[in-house]
Amino acid sequence: MSQLNIPETNDPRVVIVGGGFGGINLAKHLKNLPVQVVLLDRNNYHLFQPLLYQVSTAGLEPDSIAFPLRGIFRKQKNLVFRMAEVTGVRAAENILETGIGELRYDYLVFATGSNTNFFGNKTIEAQAIGMKSLIEAVQIRNYVVKQFEESLLLSDPEEIKPKLNFVMVGGGPTGVELAGAFAELRKYILPKDYPSIPQNLMNVYLVEAGPRLLASFTEKTSETTLKSLEELGVRVMLSTHVNEYDGKVVTLSNGEQIKSHSLLWSAGVKGVPVAGLPADILLPNGRILVNEFNQVKGYENIYAIGDIAQMTNDSRFPKGYPMVAQVAIQQGVNLAKNIKLGMQKKPVIAFHYKDLGSMATIGRNRAVVEMGKLKMHGFFAWVVWMVVHLMSLLGFRNKLVVFINWFYRYFTFERGTRIIIKRGAANIVKLRQTIEH
Amino acid sequence: MSQLNIPETNDPRVVIVGGGFGGINLAKHLKNLPVQVVLLDRNNYHLFQPLLYQVSTAGLEPDSIAFPLRGIFRKQKNLVFRMAEVTGVRAAENILETGIGELRYDYLVFATGSNTNFFGNKTIEAQAIGMKSLIEAVQIRNYVVKQFEESLLLSDPEEIKPKLNFVMVGGGPTGVELAGAFAELRKYILPKDYPSIPQNLMNVYLVEAGPRLLASFTEKTSETTLKSLEELGVRVMLSTHVNEYDGKVVTLSNGEQIKSHSLLWSAGVKGVPVAGLPADILLPNGRILVNEFNQVKGYENIYAIGDIAQMTNDSRFPKGYPMVAQVAIQQGVNLAKNIKLGMQKKPVIAFHYKDLGSMATIGRNRAVVEMGKLKMHGFFAWVVWMVVHLMSLLGFRNKLVVFINWFYRYFTFERGTRIIIKRGAANIVKLRQTIEH
Repeated sequence: MSQLNIPETNDPRVVIVGGGFGGINLAKHLKNLPVQVVLLDRNNYHLFQPLLYQVSTAGLEPDSIAFPLRGIFRKQKNLVFRMAEVTGVRAAENILETGIGELRYDYLVFATGSNTNFFGNKTIEAQAIGMKSLIEAVQIRNYVVKQFEESLLLSDPEEIKPKLNFVMVGGGPTGVELAGAFAELRKYILPKDYPSIPQNLMNVYLVEAGPRLLASFTEKTSETTLKSLEELGVRVMLSTHVNEYDGKVVTLSNGEQIKSHSLLWSAGVKGVPVAGLPADILLPNGRILVNEFNQVKGYENIYAIGDIAQMTNDSRFPKGYPMVAQVAIQQGVNLAKNIKLGMQKKPVIAFHYKDLGSMATIGRNRAVVEMGKLKMHGFFAWVVWMVVHLMSLLGFRNKLVVFINWFYRYFTFERGTRIIIKRGAANIVKLRQTIEH
Repeated sequence: MSQLNIPETNDPRVVIVGGGFGGINLAKHLKNLPVQVVLLDRNNYHLFQPLLYQVSTAGLEPDSIAFPLRGIFRKQKNLVFRMAEVTGVRAAENILETGIGELRYDYLVFATGSNTNFFGNKTIEAQAIGMKSLIEAVQIRNYVVKQFEESLLLSDPEEIKPKLNFVMVGGGPTGVELAGAFAELRKYILPKDYPSIPQNLMNVYLVEAGPRLLASFTEKTSETTLKSLEELGVRVMLSTHVNEYDGKVVTLSNGEQIKSHSLLWSAGVKGVPVAGLPADILLPNGRILVNEFNQVKGYENIYAIGDIAQMTNDSRFPKGYPMVAQVAIQQGVNLAKNIKLGMQKKPVIAFHYKDLGSMATIGRNRAVVEMGKLKMHGFFAWVVWMVVHLMSLLGFRNKLVVFINWFYRYFTFERGTRIIIKRGAANIVKLRQTIEH
């Protein structure tokens, strides 16, 4: 394999695989160290995943939640970015293999994040849509608008219903936010844009395997969320599994069947596997076992942070930390410190997770927020949710464009970006093929 | 073929094919008439084509120059929109055939616009990229950023050059604006985002078959434009044809060869053919012959407006009116008046084109504007260009988002949307296949 064309320096080289929350925070905190940082990602942008669901429901432009990695790191002189896909590791030689050539490393950090987890159900995987990438979100938007347009061509309600039954699986924040956004499409957009389609032909289902929504929040918040979604017209089904889905009929564990052409799956994530590491450090959930310093078990200079890393040093989280942005960010920052300490031959610091709280938006004027002892819901929680997300977005332009879209939507009840950019993709299977290639 | 599901009324039905400038202006002006307007388009949005080149050069989000047709016409109660592709006409029966069913009409109006014209050169058509649709513009953006990323992997300048040689063909407004925007990418973005690529490896060529750029403007303006582009570093070649292009080498009529992976073709447009009309009313340039009332020759109740219509009632334009937005808009408005007059049994009015002027932007602080006797260039022309385009954009949200993007770019020299959304498409041929399906 050819050598990757990267300038050689005298500084040790830190190769970071993945430009998500973990990767970019680690890279930023290595700014003033005498190291060469090589950041690799298969895309050329950092994706603000918490707002992905708004792209798929026509609330935000895809471009406003993606930020070019070159833009983020333009001023960081010790960093080189390359768009590349990792294909393997030869750990004994300190060599990383990528689709565009080989690369020597002194430190190697996997920050590859997570992918949709279908828990091994291949038939569901073949027919459902995940919610992890920008292209998936754009395709969902196109697909959903197409269902509405095609419904107009039909007169038999029994033919229309499967097109307008939207089934979300997974009652975590993504599932709740998606279901809320679909319920708002039903409430505000359907009657205005498609007055000839009776509103009762569109139904939004939220299926959760556990006994409550937002299981990582308090029980009271779960109840508030359930009530809010039901007020918006979402049919929430708790303690229910999806057994089968053939693209047309969703079969639930309680025997019920829902005719639907759209199954949106956010019931779980799993680590994105890395080729070339020994099988025994990869856990069945796709994550990599790390110690409290984010070191991959059995390696001195290979690390994993964020969703892909499974660290079990905290008794509150016996199965590892939750796969959320905050853990990735904090692990990135801690690892940067440890690389510095290590280079200074000082003792390194074990990772300690500080839970800054969680929040989810349910719809217009409705959100739930938990920050330590502070719990709130309703309008004020919704404002807090907006401010926190707006402030976390990278870049002034993105903040402003997202703000305008929200502002506009709030006062007009409109969604500006209901356009179908990509034509074709007559069904979800074709759509998935388009996504994967 | 099945019947298209559209409510029957007692009013005569005007079917408009195409939601471009002509189609939407006709439809709007039929608002208060006792007619049923059926608007068909293959997309669900109106595209503001004059700013398409900014999408392809990462200056604007695709969503900000597209406006959902349902949004435009939400309040027009006598209008029905359907997303459909026309497949034929049975004029004797007053029936329009579409991909989603048949449709009876009382008046039928073709406003189908134009497509890229490769003047029959199949090998160029197979390898070049056109600039007429939103998906083409997004794909060009993705493709261009990809060329930069891939150049980083190479060390031999002779291998890099073909990736960074961008050849625009056609010296009309689109070609000039594109060349200017590419020259600005070279000047402002390349040195910042890709400091390791020597600037002289990137070259922007503009090839025009005629003796001057912007042939529809005055000679003085052509000269100003040429000078401005050359100052920006564009290599302009006048009185030069592209003879061949195999995807790797552009062969010009003067024998010169340019190694380039990117040939952007805006050298001409032709009407989008409509199936089912007799061959003799279709001209070789794809346009439909109409009389001064936009009536298709030989038919009482079939009309064509805008780019697709060729009307030769004006001695200034012996080959028909130019294929620009203003003609389409004015013909749409005039036809609406004539439909009203016809229903009132009053004499109809022949179309009279009022030239409101033309303008083209060359780059930052540089544009050329001609409005009647008023001719200007430079900073003030550039401001006029921006204001006119901003005001012509549909919708408050789109205006605001475009304004912010321009404002941001002006002060930061940045382009916000340099992200590659779609992966794959390793070369232009594949890219074109993606576009066409």
